[in-house]
Formats: sequence, structure tokens, C-alpha cells
Amino acid sequence: MIIVLKPGATQGEVDEVDGKIRSFGLSSHISRGVERTIIGAIGDERKMDAEAFEGMECVEKVLRILKPYKLVSRDFQKEDTVVTVLGQKVGGDTIALFAGPCSVEGRDMMVGIAERVAAAGATFLRGGAFKPRTSPYAFQGLGEEGLRYLAEARAATGLPVATELMDPRDIDVVMKYADVIQIGARNMQNFRLLTEVGKLDKPVILKRGMSATIVEWLMSAEYIASQGNRQIILCERGVRTFETETRNTFDVSAIPVVKGLSHLPVIADPSHAAGKVGLVAPLAAAAIAAGADGLMIEVHDRPEKALSDGPQSLKPDAFRDVVARLTKIASAVGRRVGNA
Amino acid sequence: MIIVLKPGATQGEVDEVDGKIRSFGLSSHISRGVERTIIGAIGDERKMDAEAFEGMECVEKVLRILKPYKLVSRDFQKEDTVVTVLGQKVGGDTIALFAGPCSVEGRDMMVGIAERVAAAGATFLRGGAFKPRTSPYAFQGLGEEGLRYLAEARAATGLPVATELMDPRDIDVVMKYADVIQIGARNMQNFRLLTEVGKLDKPVILKRGMSATIVEWLMSAEYIASQGNRQIILCERGVRTFETETRNTFDVSAIPVVKGLSHLPVIADPSHAAGKVGLVAPLAAAAIAAGADGLMIEVHDRPEKALSDGPQSLKPDAFRDVVARLTKIASAVGRRVGNA
Amino acid sequence: MIIVLKPGATQGEVDEVDGKIRSFGLSSHISRGVERTIIGAIGDERKMDAEAFEGMECVEKVLRILKPYKLVSRDFQKEDTVVTVLGQKVGGDTIALFAGPCSVEGRDMMVGIAERVAAAGATFLRGGAFKPRTSPYAFQGLGEEGLRYLAEARAATGLPVATELMDPRDIDVVMKYADVIQIGARNMQNFRLLTEVGKLDKPVILKRGMSATIVEWLMSAEYIASQGNRQIILCERGVRTFETETRNTFDVSAIPVVKGLSHLPVIADPSHAAGKVGLVAPLAAAAIAAGADGLMIEVHDRPEKALSDGPQSLKPDAFRDVVARLTKIASAVGRRVGNA
Amino acid sequence: MIIVLKPGATQGEVDEVDGKIRSFGLSSHISRGVERTIIGAIGDERKMDAEAFEGMECVEKVLRILKPYKLVSRDFQKEDTVVTVLGQKVGGDTIALFAGPCSVEGRDMMVGIAERVAAAGATFLRGGAFKPRTSPYAFQGLGEEGLRYLAEARAATGLPVATELMDPRDIDVVMKYADVIQIGARNMQNFRLLTEVGKLDKPVILKRGMSATIVEWLMSAEYIASQGNRQIILCERGVRTFETETRNTFDVSAIPVVKGLSHLPVIADPSHAAGKVGLVAPLAAAAIAAGADGLMIEVHDRPEKALSDGPQSLKPDAFRDVVARLTKIASAVGRRVGNA
Repeated sequence: MIIVLKPGATQGEVDEVDGKIRSFGLSSHISRGVERTIIGAIGDERKMDAEAFEGMECVEKVLRILKPYKLVSRDFQKEDTVVTVLGQKVGGDTIALFAGPCSVEGRDMMVGIAERVAAAGATFLRGGAFKPRTSPYAFQGLGEEGLRYLAEARAATGLPVATELMDPRDIDVVMKYADVIQIGARNMQNFRLLTEVGKLDKPVILKRGMSATIVEWLMSAEYIASQGNRQIILCERGVRTFETETRNTFDVSAIPVVKGLSHLPVIADPSHAAGKVGLVAPLAAAAIAAGADGLMIEVHDRPEKALSDGPQSLKPDAFRDVVARLTKIASAVGRRVGNA
Repeated sequence: MIIVLKPGATQGEVDEVDGKIRSFGLSSHISRGVERTIIGAIGDERKMDAEAFEGMECVEKVLRILKPYKLVSRDFQKEDTVVTVLGQKVGGDTIALFAGPCSVEGRDMMVGIAERVAAAGATFLRGGAFKPRTSPYAFQGLGEEGLRYLAEARAATGLPVATELMDPRDIDVVMKYADVIQIGARNMQNFRLLTEVGKLDKPVILKRGMSATIVEWLMSAEYIASQGNRQIILCERGVRTFETETRNTFDVSAIPVVKGLSHLPVIADPSHAAGKVGLVAPLAAAAIAAGADGLMIEVHDRPEKALSDGPQSLKPDAFRDVVARLTKIASAVGRRVGNA
Repeated sequence: MIIVLKPGATQGEVDEVDGKIRSFGLSSHISRGVERTIIGAIGDERKMDAEAFEGMECVEKVLRILKPYKLVSRDFQKEDTVVTVLGQKVGGDTIALFAGPCSVEGRDMMVGIAERVAAAGATFLRGGAFKPRTSPYAFQGLGEEGLRYLAEARAATGLPVATELMDPRDIDVVMKYADVIQIGARNMQNFRLLTEVGKLDKPVILKRGMSATIVEWLMSAEYIASQGNRQIILCERGVRTFETETRNTFDVSAIPVVKGLSHLPVIADPSHAAGKVGLVAPLAAAAIAAGADGLMIEVHDRPEKALSDGPQSLKPDAFRDVVARLTKIASAVGRRVGNA
Repeated sequence: MIIVLKPGATQGEVDEVDGKIRSFGLSSHISRGVERTIIGAIGDERKMDAEAFEGMECVEKVLRILKPYKLVSRDFQKEDTVVTVLGQKVGGDTIALFAGPCSVEGRDMMVGIAERVAAAGATFLRGGAFKPRTSPYAFQGLGEEGLRYLAEARAATGLPVATELMDPRDIDVVMKYADVIQIGARNMQNFRLLTEVGKLDKPVILKRGMSATIVEWLMSAEYIASQGNRQIILCERGVRTFETETRNTFDVSAIPVVKGLSHLPVIADPSHAAGKVGLVAPLAAAAIAAGADGLMIEVHDRPEKALSDGPQSLKPDAFRDVVARLTKIASAVGRRVGNA
């Protein structure tokens, strides 16, 4: 950590900063420049709180040298993490393909879509039983009933099931049915929930918050990892910007950036990023080209009647066609898409 | 709701949209323009899901006419809501003054600061016992121990206590000690938590999410109100932008905008908005000038030793001076600041 | 255009809005709903100024039905525009490949890099002679001397030259040497400059402003087109967001969105978008996968000594390798990359 | 400047960085930490280009210690700059009040409004003769004819005139009539225009670009100052965010931040920031409370017929009432508003 003092800092102030650094167990190096005095803290800066220095009168700014996350960093683990569930992998040569409806709306609907997406090459099923909805008056999901239909869909297809957990009080019921737990964008900094899933022995998809920096996203992954659960899958789903032609702005750069900073697999959710069905295929292709380890795509048999996210859901036939296109892109980067 | 069809939409498609509108119990009006056919849905559009139409092939865009929130809107209730707790008000002529440390760090510290801020004119105490921290390695709050110290501070000063609730599982313990429950920015769309506090008989401060639009913020308030709890206080604390000189960008416009759209009181948190102690006074003054009903200001006796948010915390003496400056601004808009 | 009146609007106010619509030569349709009166303007709404209505006391909001741009829209021209310069195309099956240094720094440097990128498959040369620099103390470009070196590089390779125009006063000198004129992101709304290049008979690359919406970008293209110049190439180069790991956030969605809204070709500049050399290849691949018609890539023989944009410039050998990777992606979408 | 090397950097790489620092005429200090080697450059880092280091293979990141601007910084000049024009001041105890229509639309209109705003306390007139409009089909301003009307308005009131310059080719005609030159938000990084106005002996209002950081804004001011013109007035007018209830998000924090970093006066434009007439008064009050040195307010006698910016323009009577309210706020911070 580098602490830059304001012009005119006194010797007493320099000593105060120096003393505080030592109180954290680090040593310091003082450098008096032409315009500013700069103090470097030598040792593991993660033990020190930058704010402790920013709160001092004489300090102009504090610059961090090290990354604030550790367990999830590429520095900590060189080789890629591969998450395996019921024989399906996320990470490695095969691009994982999560597909299914936004919300589970009924048994036949869920099982029917599951069979269609499985036939088209999906390797994981997705479907929401607990739904975070902006309006209190909108459909909130079927709850445990929805989870049961997901389990039936798993039984019918053999594919593992990913579903969202919104509340620590639902852990038991969700654990009973789900193979992969999803933490939604709005809960990326629900730290209590992160702490709880960190204690589970079940893979977790951590969606990026809609205004989360990449560092904050990795810090949330660190929350989970710090409790013991290292089976973490990051999911880019678009960030919030001023642009209104798309629901969110899909941050495709985040994929290679995260692959550089962390050993965790990264998947992309082009359905939520775009909010428009016509953009799902080009964004999915872009994600694969940029190095994504998987895709999460919404599929609905009757999007115009969907209880949520209709505008961005593909029909099963369209999904099959999209997978065919993606297969070529994947091949160009030396990978394959799901079971297609 | 206005549904704009793509150029070349067929009569069959027009009929399909028309049928769907009627299925929601509304009637429709079809207008064929030079370049587009437009269909207006007549009736309470809140009963219809815009997505149901956006998912249709023939639809170009869907425009909402009505606001998606109702109970919290100024249309629903003309007169201002005033929240009263232990004789202290939020809303009305007096600008409420919430003051105290970011985190409760100990008994003497909490009671000491409480006495100082009470003497300076504060009308509510604030202090976090459960802290949402970006890093899993940072101080997470004292939990129930912290709540007990808050209760002691209340006993010493007579002022009501506001503190953050992060997890539905903590409701009982927080209800036991707190007078006002705070929902933090990161939980503004934790809909399960909103639903739970909506069932309580206790005022709620709802902080704006760091990338929440004003409409989304009001929708989260609607979640609380829809469960029965109408004692809601909105709190602007800055939004996330590209600017890096301040921690967040304090959206002062949100204050008059929300006062126009809603009957709920709005307070401002200049400490979190700016992240720098030198900006607290000018932003607090700006908030009052723009019509805020209250302020939430972090005060710490030794900011350079604070376990969180040191850089933005005022010392008690500085707080007293800031209150004196604010008193003049409040007087210019015909109000008074706290008990000062 | 749909004009929504405030609740309680009087008949006199309705008449006033109606009269104003008619004054623009359109007719109107009045619909009295349960909560709001809505007035639709029937005819070409581009003749009306939305602000004229927003300024009226009784108006709650104004909703546009039509797009504000016309000549550059896909509605106006169904088939794709293909720009051809010295036998090289932008649009069509071949993905155009603009390559060269950020700034022209000398004759040998420019010609040398040009020969290397031409050998690697580039179809256009790029290089800045007039440079927009954030600091007045930074290198501002070689001016006409730089343009002469670009012309020499064209003579050596046969490739057309693209270079930036910053000032209407430089039009004559830039026209003397350049084959394609580039309007930089910071000048996307320099309307006087747009008007001037609209009068030229020379293709124009219009970079997206760093906080420009897609609609604003297309409106700036409309400025050029409205003056007669239809040889416009749009270039996505990243937008400004809160993320700090990348210089800008590359908005890959903009590519398919713009291809849907407009007939103009769209290229991508992954070098500026990312600001980091390691991200150029994945972002270029993503752009092709998403449907881009071309790429603009910075290449420098000694990036660590570059007078501008060193961190994001590829060395010629690395450029050749990147092109080889991109060739596979292009093939997967049925296209080829430059002359590679 | 602090240069952080990647883990595992070799001695040869350390030497290379060291050599480059020395080549800029600075000396260096090498510090080998537990996880990273850090090299500090000692001397005036403004002479060095951060990019020169970021482009090196072995460099992880580069941290600046000093501010990149100099002449406009508070470090360079402690006392506030006060700009004086025809006896009117910007800076100091009186809050300057720029008022007038968005566009000059005619002689009688301009002179009439000028007389009304002068009577209400305005100290400067504003009015656009050259207008930057998003659409090529919108009214573009009266040009020199408009400037003549501004001069007539000055003659009628004795107040100095501020008007926008968009193009270096218009300098002579604008200089003939204007007392203060305004550079609009869209031209904040039109560096050629900044360089030209830097050579003039006339005060310049520099509006903040809609996605400009405070540092970039000050760098644009530095462009002007570096050419000799130190009569610079900064104007905050809102930045672009995701919020759609307001046209821009007025960054009130920028006012105290800039007052801390720079000696230049800062004014606020609440009309453009909000885009809604009802928000002008609260935002103007907030700006004064936060320390602004002036306000720029749009006034139109018939906003509903204005050729631009009608929705945000006050009528003259409303302007007079707003000034009366602002006078109280100004008094609370020990200042007066214009001639009111």
C-alpha cells in the first residue's frame, strides 16, 4: 500500500502514519519527493484497512498494490477450476449449456422444455422457482412446487438442475432438489446469503451485479470461497449503463479479464444481457469467441405467454438452430458446445 | 399501455394483440398510422404485463402510460406522509437528523457518541450492528451485542435508534432493540427482505440501490407498502457513475423528483454519497436546499481508528459545527434542523 | 407521437394540445382513459418537436413512436450499404481490416508498419496525424508531415488510408492525402464538423461517442447523410461505465442492434475499447462473432516507445497471429478477414 | 509515479524500467516487496507518459501520484480566481446570475427577455446564436443575426453577453459581439477549439462534458490556460447516468470537489441538468448551498413555443420568484445572488 501525504505534511504526521503501519504488523518506507512525501507499507497489505489511512487529516490518497481477493485469484491457483456435476462439466473443452425457462410455470411445461433443450445439446437445465421481480404484483414463482417439477425434468433428461436461491431460509428446500445453486445479480452483495452458500457442498453460479465492478464480483466470490465452497461459476449478464436499446450492456470484455484475474470458470447469460430474443444468438457467439466457459439461455415453448422474461426467450426450435450456429464458433476456438 | 406494431403487421397479428389485451380485462383502441399501427389498451394497465406483448413477433415496442407503483405514489395519496417514532418526526417542518457511527464498536464509544450528537441536535441515533462489507475479511459488526449498546445509547439520550437489517433471520433480534429498521443500498432489491419488513409495525428506511432508477426505488417501497407497512422513509445515498473523485455521485435531483412522484419522506446520506468528510457539509446543505426531509450523518469520535467508513465520518465537534451551518440553510427554506 | 396529459387536464388544455398538433400539419386522436387523457398525433411526427409539448403545463409525458433518424435507417433502405475505396470494401463478405499505429511518428516507422500489416492481411491503413489528446502537454501529432507519410505508406502497399479529421479548417489538407476520413469519439457530436464531412465525396468512419446512445450515434450519421454523403462507416469503440479494469466497456451488443436499425456497415475498434493489448484478440473475435463488418486494430513496432496508446498496440508479429485466429472465427460465420 | 511489476519480473526487466525512468530525467527507487517489486519514479512525473510504462510486458500497473493538471490547480494558485467582465464578477461574494433564452429567436424576444431578467437581478445575459442540436433537421440558431440581437440586449441592459462558440471558423464573428465565450458540453474535448480560445483575451465558460470526469474537465481547462487565457469559468451541467427521470444527473458534489482542486470559479446550469422546469429552483438552491459561484438559468417568455429547450425554461415572472428564493439560500451561506 502506498500512502501519499498532502503537501506540507509535518514530521509528526509522517511519524503517525508510520506508527499506524507498524501497528498492523507491516514495515514502512518513507520517500520524500519534490512535491509530496510518500510512504510505502511493506508486507501483506490485506491485513491493513485502507480506510484507516484515508481517514487521517494528512493523507491525500491511498493506493493499493495488491488485489483485495486471494482464494479466487489466478495468483493463488494457476490452473483453471473445473466444476463437475452429475458428470457435466463447467470449464474445460466443452462449453456448458444451461437452458430452460426463466420461471418454472408447470410440470408439463418444464419437463417438455427440458426434453427439447436436452435433445438440442443442453448440458444443464435452468428454471426459476423463486423469482426476484421488480413489482410486488408480478408472478413470484411456484416455490417448492416449481422445484419438484425441476426434479422431474432432471429425472426425464438426466441433466443437472440449476435454480436460484434468494433467501437463506430456503436453503433446505433448494438443497433438496437443486444440483447447482444460482445467486442472482440483485443478491451479488447479499453477503449473508453468500456466507451461507459458502458453507454448502454444492456448486454455485454467482451472477454479476448490475453495477458491480469486476473486483467487487470477485470479492463476492471470495466470500463464498472463504467459507470453504470452491465450486464457484461466475456469470456475466450485462451491466447497467445509459444505453436504452438493450436492457443491460453485455460486458463481453469481462470474460477475458476475469479469466486473467481468476481461475474460476466464467459463463455468460445473453438472454438477460440483451432482453431481446434477436440478440441472444449474436451475443452468445460473441461470448464464446471471447472465451466463455458456458452459456445460460432462456427457452420457452410459448414466449408470448411466459409469466416472466418472454421477450428474451427462444422457442425450442430456435434454440436448436442457435446451438448449431454456436457449434461452428466453438469449433473455431477449439471447443465444443454442450452435447451438440 | 400503447403497443406499437412493426411495419407490415398483418390483420391476424393485430387481432392477436387485441385478443391478448381483452384477456387481461381491458379494452383496446386500434389506430392505423402512416408508418405504424398502434394499439392502445384502455383500462388499468397495471393488470397487464408489458413483457407479454414485447415477446410477440409483431410488436416493435410497448410504452407504459401509468406509473407501475401505486400505494406510494402522490396520485394515490396527496398529502405528505409523516413518520413519527418516540415523538421524533420524519417529514414536516423539522428536518430529521440521524447521527452516529457507521458501526457500533463498543459500549462506551456508542453511548459517548450518542450523547455528543444528541447535544448537537440529532433527533435519531444511527449505528450498524450487522454490517454489509465488500470483503469477507473485514469487520462484520458486533451483532446483538451492538444492538444492546444502541439500546443503552437510546436510554441515555431518549432518542430513537435506527439500525440495518440484512437478513430475514435477524428480524426478531433487530425488532427487540431497534426503533427504525434500515434496509441498505445493496439490499434494495432483496425482495424477500422487503416483503418481511412490509409485515412489521416499525418504520423502515429504504436506501436507494447504487444503480437503482428512481422508479425501481419506488417499486421497492411499493413492495413494503403492499404488505401493509406504510411507514417508509426513502434515503438517497448516491448512485454509481464513472466519476472517481467521489465514492458515489450524490443524486440531489432525486430529492425533488421523488417528492413530486411520492408522498413518502425523503432523507439524504451525504456521508456515504461522498465518501469524504470534507464533502459532508456542502452535500448536506445541498440536500436541505433541494427539499430533503432529513439527513443521515456518520459521526465517530476517532475516525482514524474507525473499523469502517472512517474517511467519511465527522468528529462530534465538527458535527456540531456542521449542524450550525445547516440551521441557516434550513431557515432559508422555512424549516429547522433537528433539535438544534 | 403520443402525448399523455396530467390527471385533471381541462377541456381547454386538451384543445390547446390538439391545436398545436394541427399547427404542425398533423391530425390528432383524443382518448380519455380511466386515469389519463391521451392524445395521439397522426402523421409524420418528425415534423413535430417533442419539446414543444413537454413545455406545456398540462403535459405529463411525450412518447415518440417513430425513430428520429431516417436516411440511415433500415426502414429507409433495406439492403446493406457497402463502402468501396480503391477496390477495398467495408460491408459484404470480407471483414475489412484497418491496421496501423495510433499516431504516425515518422516515415520509416509508418511505411514499415504498413508493409507488415499489409503482409498480414490488412485492407486499410490507419494512422493519426492530428491527435486528440487529453493533456495539452502530450504529443499532438505530426500534422501534414504525418499525412505525407501515410501517403507514402499507401504508395508502398496499395492500401487506402484512413486518418482522423478534428477541425473543419484541416479539411483541405486531409482531403489531399486521406482515402477515408475518421471522426473520433470526442467529435461525434461536433455537429459543424459532421456537416462539413457530409458535403465531401469521401467515406467517413464515425466513431461512437463514449457516452452516446445508439440513437444519438445514428443521429450523428444522419447529420452526415443529410448533407449528401452516404458513404458512412459506423465504429463501436467502447462506452464509458463505472468499470475500471478496462479503459472503456466494449458494447458488443451495439453491433447487432445497429445492423438491425440501420443499413450502414459497422466496424469495431477493440484496441481503444479495451486499452490493453491482451484483450484485443478476444474482443476482435467477439466483434466478428456478433456480426461486425470490420475491425480497426492498432499496431506498433515498438509499443513500449509509442508516443500514444502503447499499452493497447500489438506488435506486427502478434497482429499476424491475431489475424490467423480471427480467420477461423470469420469462417464460422461465413466470412473472411481482410486479405488473410 | 509508482510502477508495480508483475510477480516474477526479472532483474533485466527491473533495469529496463529503471532505464526508462532515467531517460525522462527522473531518478528511481526500487522496492522489492513480498509479492511484488515496486519502482518509484522521483521527480516531476508530468514529464513522463504513464502509457510508456503500461506498454511494457513486465508492468502490472502504473499509479500516478501527482495531478496531471498544473496551471488550474489549487496547488499552483492558492487564491480564488475572480473573472470580471464589464464590471460584473464571477467568483467572490456575489453569485453571478446568467439568464436568458436557450436560443436567440428574434430581436424583440431577446431584448424583451433581457430587460425582464435584468430587472430580476441577472448579472449576465445568455443566448445561443449557434446551437448544437442532436438532429440535423432541428433549428440550428440564427448565427450572426442572433449575435446582433444579443448586442442589442446588452445595449438595453448594460449586462455582458455570454454565447456559445462551436467552430474555430466563427471566432471572429463571435468575438465581435460576445463578452464571454461559452464552450458547450459536447465540445469539452474539442481540443482544437480549446486551443483557439486559449489564445483569446476573453473569459471562457467551459461546460463539463456529459461523461467527463472531473479530472478530464480540469485537463480541458488546462488546455485553455496553457495557451495563456486564465479567465476560465467552469460550469457543471449534469452528467449522463442510467437514470431517466431527469435528462442528466446533476453532480452537485462536483462543485465542492472542484473548489478544492482548482482556483477557478464554478457555476451550475440547473436548467440543462434537469431538463424540467420544476427542478430548476431546487437544483439552483442546492448548487448555491454547495458553494457554486454562479448560476446559468434558461428563461423564455413563451416556453411552450420555444425553438429549443422549452421544457426547462422558466417564464420571466417565475425566474423573478426563483431569484427571490435563492436570495435567502445565498444569505445563509454569506453571499448575495446577482443584483437581486
